[in-house]
Formats: sequence, structure tokens, C-alpha cells
Amino acid sequence: MKKVKIAIMGIGTVGGGTYEILTTNRELIKKTRGLDITVKKILDRAVENVTARGIDASLACTDLEAIVTDPEISIVVETMGGVEPARSFILRVLAAGKSVVTANKELISKCGYELEAAAKKTGAGLYYEASCVGGVPIIRTLTDSMQANNITEILGIINGTTNYILTKMSKEGLTYEAALKEAQQLGYAEFNPTADVEGYDAMYKLSILSSLAFHTCIPYTSIYREGITKITAEDIAVGKEMGYTLKLLAIGKRSGNEIEARVHPTFVPNSHPLASVNDAFNAVFLKGDFVDDIMLYGRGAGARPTGSAIVSDIVVCAEQASRHSYSDFDNNGRLEEGIVVKSNFSSRYYLSFKLMDKPGVLGKITGILGDNGVSINKAMQHGDDADGYAPVVFFTHLTTEDAVRKSLDIISRSDAVKSLDSLIRVL
Amino acid sequence: MKKVKIAIMGIGTVGGGTYEILTTNRELIKKTRGLDITVKKILDRAVENVTARGIDASLACTDLEAIVTDPEISIVVETMGGVEPARSFILRVLAAGKSVVTANKELISKCGYELEAAAKKTGAGLYYEASCVGGVPIIRTLTDSMQANNITEILGIINGTTNYILTKMSKEGLTYEAALKEAQQLGYAEFNPTADVEGYDAMYKLSILSSLAFHTCIPYTSIYREGITKITAEDIAVGKEMGYTLKLLAIGKRSGNEIEARVHPTFVPNSHPLASVNDAFNAVFLKGDFVDDIMLYGRGAGARPTGSAIVSDIVVCAEQASRHSYSDFDNNGRLEEGIVVKSNFSSRYYLSFKLMDKPGVLGKITGILGDNGVSINKAMQHGDDADGYAPVVFFTHLTTEDAVRKSLDIISRSDAVKSLDSLIRVL
Repeated sequence: MKKVKIAIMGIGTVGGGTYEILTTNRELIKKTRGLDITVKKILDRAVENVTARGIDASLACTDLEAIVTDPEISIVVETMGGVEPARSFILRVLAAGKSVVTANKELISKCGYELEAAAKKTGAGLYYEASCVGGVPIIRTLTDSMQANNITEILGIINGTTNYILTKMSKEGLTYEAALKEAQQLGYAEFNPTADVEGYDAMYKLSILSSLAFHTCIPYTSIYREGITKITAEDIAVGKEMGYTLKLLAIGKRSGNEIEARVHPTFVPNSHPLASVNDAFNAVFLKGDFVDDIMLYGRGAGARPTGSAIVSDIVVCAEQASRHSYSDFDNNGRLEEGIVVKSNFSSRYYLSFKLMDKPGVLGKITGILGDNGVSINKAMQHGDDADGYAPVVFFTHLTTEDAVRKSLDIISRSDAVKSLDSLIRVL
Repeated sequence: MKKVKIAIMGIGTVGGGTYEILTTNRELIKKTRGLDITVKKILDRAVENVTARGIDASLACTDLEAIVTDPEISIVVETMGGVEPARSFILRVLAAGKSVVTANKELISKCGYELEAAAKKTGAGLYYEASCVGGVPIIRTLTDSMQANNITEILGIINGTTNYILTKMSKEGLTYEAALKEAQQLGYAEFNPTADVEGYDAMYKLSILSSLAFHTCIPYTSIYREGITKITAEDIAVGKEMGYTLKLLAIGKRSGNEIEARVHPTFVPNSHPLASVNDAFNAVFLKGDFVDDIMLYGRGAGARPTGSAIVSDIVVCAEQASRHSYSDFDNNGRLEEGIVVKSNFSSRYYLSFKLMDKPGVLGKITGILGDNGVSINKAMQHGDDADGYAPVVFFTHLTTEDAVRKSLDIISRSDAVKSLDSLIRVL
């Protein structure tokens, strides 16, 4: 029986979940993997944060050096979140030759290259399956099951908070604000929800996943990002009428040296499997040139699913000391020379305007759109006139981002238009 | 760059797909994994089977010893199918200390314990990700991502042929015979379709998957198996009317030392994600005590997806020579002492009868069912009387297999019943 002593840095929700799994299922892992994994030290700002979870105070430490200098500890779990001090702590741990398992998507997305370089220097491992899509084995699938494939597409719902909010808006007709409040009350959204609702969380994850999938660094700064805060109950209702469900999608595509990487609200046809991924669940499609589509579905967040992914990394790390989970590309944190992230991607669009209710206006607008290469699939008035303006929505055929932007620029200067209320991409 | 020389035994569909991936994506695997994998020998009954695929005759061999005695070959892929001679060939290869990657579910299910023992003896690896659910990384998920979990349930569509047939019957109203014929014409079903349509293929896979999931040997002989050959267009139509889609499900459950392991046609509520898994696609739910539900979806068969899984095994095998994919339980091929596979499982049921169209008959039947613990959720006549008998279907509440069997035994002796036409379990 191999004995594995680990430390946990940060005993919040996910750190607590990890500790719980390691104690609850210790015998299972001993029996099935021949590994006796025990938590020797838990680092937190205050000893009370450790004891408040019913964990003996003897495990608690407030000084990182107690972990770094403990020769028995071989693996350190980081569940503090955020960039600092997590980054400095991990660098210190890696420099000491200890492997790190982290759930920190922001840190891996922003500083992964730096952590990897530090890990390689001492031969330590760096594992982060838990950073993306909670308990769903998405990173392991990319690295250990799709090695034979050129991956051309990632398409997924990778943020549980926004999916919960959008599900509530869609199923119960709630406004964004009401749905957010409910998500906060249930602990699905934080008091400051920005990272989730503005798409930052999904952007960090897409940066990690698309880099692994496309074997080249896709910096988070190159990803187009749009959150769900401007989505209205009306948009969702109109979409519903037309057979669409609104989701915050993360989309990554590779075609030769051209990459698309974007996170934005998207109308998904109800016939698409992602349309029925509800509440806090996540799901990701991966397309490989030989395996075709694979979809993975599960809980994308939470103490227990994320803890499950962390413990799977601990087991893998303990079992294969010689094979680390480093990136298979030159990860200097920057876009590789010759690789282009396209801002002018192709999509279908939903556009919602308030238009002057006068003969000829609709024709004028569709004329401008058509002149710029945006052809209309459906146009309809939804709701009543107010002050002489009618709410009108358009669904376009496949066109490009640039064509839509250029059209809207011209349209916005027309007196016939009171406002562009929504622009939502359609899958 | 590590050079890896392999051999392929059996250059049929899957062997051909494996060869195609290894040649097409050789540079990708070199670049991303640092492995230069080449096929050195291909074993088949006739050299023409090799050259017919455009492969140079110099790779072909018809004598196993040419592979076994080649010191450069470290990994041998078996894509012959069936038990013999695949079993003897693999035993010979393992005895020579070479690792084996196989897609052979029947062989692993029937003789896996024997092959594992042979592999352990020489320290060779034995990998079979491709044996279950094609390109979907189900075995890797069980062994490398859910290690921290007690897995309590497997629920899935794991045979593409039957799913294609049932999808055709459901969407186009075809009879079983017509749908089978179409599947055969498209190459989804074999000329002799027994292994698929009678549920043997799904049974073998469930034996492998449930053994890995529950960490104990679930022999294929202990699995309840029922195929789709008796399913009628009427059953499917009635189910559709009631909001159900018919699927051939593989179900594995563990609760303490009690196991359920069964393969049978099942009415799945349309709201369940498995109801919308169509055509030759497969999908499997796995439930862990910490990660909760994970679902994996993808192509369950075919040269390219299965080849993708085989190559992923080759890469894993080449990268982690010291850590083999052996079972984590005492695999002697028999049910472990103390483990019970329950035949009296719980389910809901759909029962279809021809009943004498006379007052009191329906009451008599529901009375017998009720007396034996089978309570009716819905009863309805579908279609017209013939010869004084009416087609009547019942949907039951949750009950047990034994209760239903006992009721049917009594009912079958009644003059009021012309025939029991269908018994289909309902999820």
C-alpha cells in the first residue's frame, strides 16, 4: 500500500468537499487503487476555518512554509481561488518539487504558462482537471482519450450559474434580476456575480479547454466575451416562440491556423441536445476528425463534483509520477505566431429593434441589412406599439459578425430606429 | 522521439480504421505526444485482405509467430473479433511480454480474467477502451476520473444497431423487420444480426462496464438479457402516445452487496436525456456518490470512432509502461462470494393483452394484478376488437419483476385472455 500525504491550501467549499471525499472514501481508494491518501496539513488564514468543518486543529496551519518544508507531503491541493496569493503559493510549492492539483480556472488561464515552467523545472506535476466543468472529465478526455484526433470544435455550456439563471428565466418567465436573486439565495451565484454573469468564468475555462484541444495557446485575452446581464424576458419569450432556448455558450473552432474562441448568449434550436441541459448542469461537445462528436454532461460546479475531480487528479498524480499533465505545445502564454483568432466569425443572428411604425420602414431596414450581406430569414412584430414605435425582431440567415456590425452602424443613424434592443447569436 | 512499433491482428473494418488513423494523424501524435507510432506488421488470413486496403504487402503476415518473435513490436492490436482464435493469439502475444489493445467485447467479457492473468504474469499491458461504446471514453472515465466515487448506477444505450432500428421504428413507423433490413443495407447491422438484436453485444459490454464500475466481477452469464426482436410497431406507437420512447437499455445498479445487471427494451420518458439519443449514437449515465450523474455521448461503433479509442489505448500504453489497465478486483471470472445479482428487481411495466371484450374482464385482470402487488397507473384499449377480443394495454406503478411474473402466470390461465402480446419495462 503506497502512502500518499497531501496538503490542502484553502478550506472553503471546494477544499472542504475534497477533504470530505478523501475521508469518506479513503477505504475505497485504498482497496481499488492501492493508495492510502491522507491529508496531513490544511493551510488557511485562520485555524477556526479548519476546525469549523469539524477537522482537528492539529491539521491546521497558517504558514505555507510548514507545508513546503514537510518532506512527507508530496501533493498539494490549491482551492483558494483567485490569482494572488494562490499563484505565489503554488510557485513556492512547485519550486520545492511537490506536485500541485488545482481547481483554479482563473489562475491556470492567466498564469498557467508560468506555473508549468516552474513545475517542469523541478519535475513536479501540475494537474487541473477540476478547473473546468466540475466533476465532468473533460480535460482527461481531451488529453487521454482524443489524442488520435485533430479536434476542430468545442461547443458547450460551461458555467452553471448562468445556466441556472437562464433556465429560470426560460421556464418560469422570470426577469434576469429575479432569477439572479434566486440563484444567489440558493448559493449558485455569488454576492458579486460578475465573474459568472459577465462570462469571465466561461472565458477562463474556454481558454484552458481550447488551448488543450487545439494544441496551441489561446490566451483568455483573445476570446470574445459577452455576458447575460442584458438578456430580457422578452428575448427569451420570442426565442421560445420560434423554437429556441437561450444558453450562454462557449465556442471554440479550429480550421487550419484560424481559431474562433467566443463566449456569448446564444439561441440554441430546441432539437439540439444542449437546449435541454438545464439548471446548474454543464455539457460540452467535442468534435474530432476520427471520433466525430463526443458529448460530456454533468455537474459543472459544487463542492462534491469539483472535489471528485480534484481527488481523481490526486490519484492520477500519485500513480504516474513520471508522466505529468503538461501542455503539449509551447506554452508561453501568448498566441503562437501564425495563429489568428478571427473576430469576423460566421453566425446567424437575432436582432430586436424599436422601429417607427410607418410604411416603408421595415423595407428600409431589411434593405440596409441585405446591402451588407445580411439576409433575413424571419421578421416579426412582437408586442404593441408605444409612442409610434413598434418592437420588431429579425432572425437572419448565416452571415458574418462584420456584416452585422456594419449594417447596425448604418441602421443606428436612421431616424426610423428608436433603439437596437438586442443582438443575440443563433446556433 | 520515442519510436513505437505495433502490429495489428485482423484488418477488417476496425483494424482498417486503426491503420488509417495511425497513418493520417501520425504527425499529430508525434508533435503532441512525442510518440512515433508505426504499424510494422499486419496479421490476416490472406495477404490480399491487407493489400485490398491499399497497404503495402510487405506489412502483411499470415503467421502469428512473425509478430510474436519480432523484438521491435511492443504493442499488438487485436481487431479480429470473436473468441477464437483471438483468445489464443492474445495469450500467445501476452506470454511474449507484448502489450495488447483490443476492441473485442465478447472476448473480454468471456475471457478477460484469463487474459489479465496472462498479462500480469509477464508484466504486459491489456487495454480495451474500444470494447465498449466505440469512441466514447467510458472505461477511462470509470478508471481514471471516477476513482473517488462509489458508483451506484450505470444506465445507457450501448448498442448502436438496435438504437438505429428502434429510432427508425419510432420516427418512421417501420416494422421491426423493415427497420432491420434498412440497418443491414446501411451496414449498421450484420447479415446475421443476432448478437446485436438479441442483446448479446450490450450484455457483454454491460458485463465489462459494471465489473469496472462496481469493482467486482459481474459475469455476463449473470446478466438478464432480452432483445428487441419481439417489439412491434404497435408497442412503439402506444408508448409514443403516452410520452415514451423505446430504447434497448443496459442497466447496472449496486446497493451494498446487491447488484442489478440487465439488458432489455425499455420505455424511456421523453423528458429523459436518453430518449433523444437517436440513430447509431450511444449514451451512458454513470452515477457516483460524490460526482452525481455524468453522461457520456457519442458514436458507439464504426471504424473511425472505435479506431480512435484503440489509438488512445496505444498512446496510453506507450506512455505509461509501468501502470497497466488491470482490474482492481479479484478477477477470476466468477461472481464474488457474498455478491448477489438480483433477479427480482423493481421497475414499472407496460403490459399488452388481447382480452375478451366482456363486462368484468378488465376488473378481473386488474384484480389479479392488484392482489399480487401490481398497481395500475393507466389502462386503455388501443385498436379495435377482433373475434371478440380487444387489445388492452396497462402501464403499472413501480412494482417488482416477481410480482409481475406471478400475476401473469395466473392471468395466462384465465379464459378471458387470448394472449399476452408484450411486456416492456418502463424507466
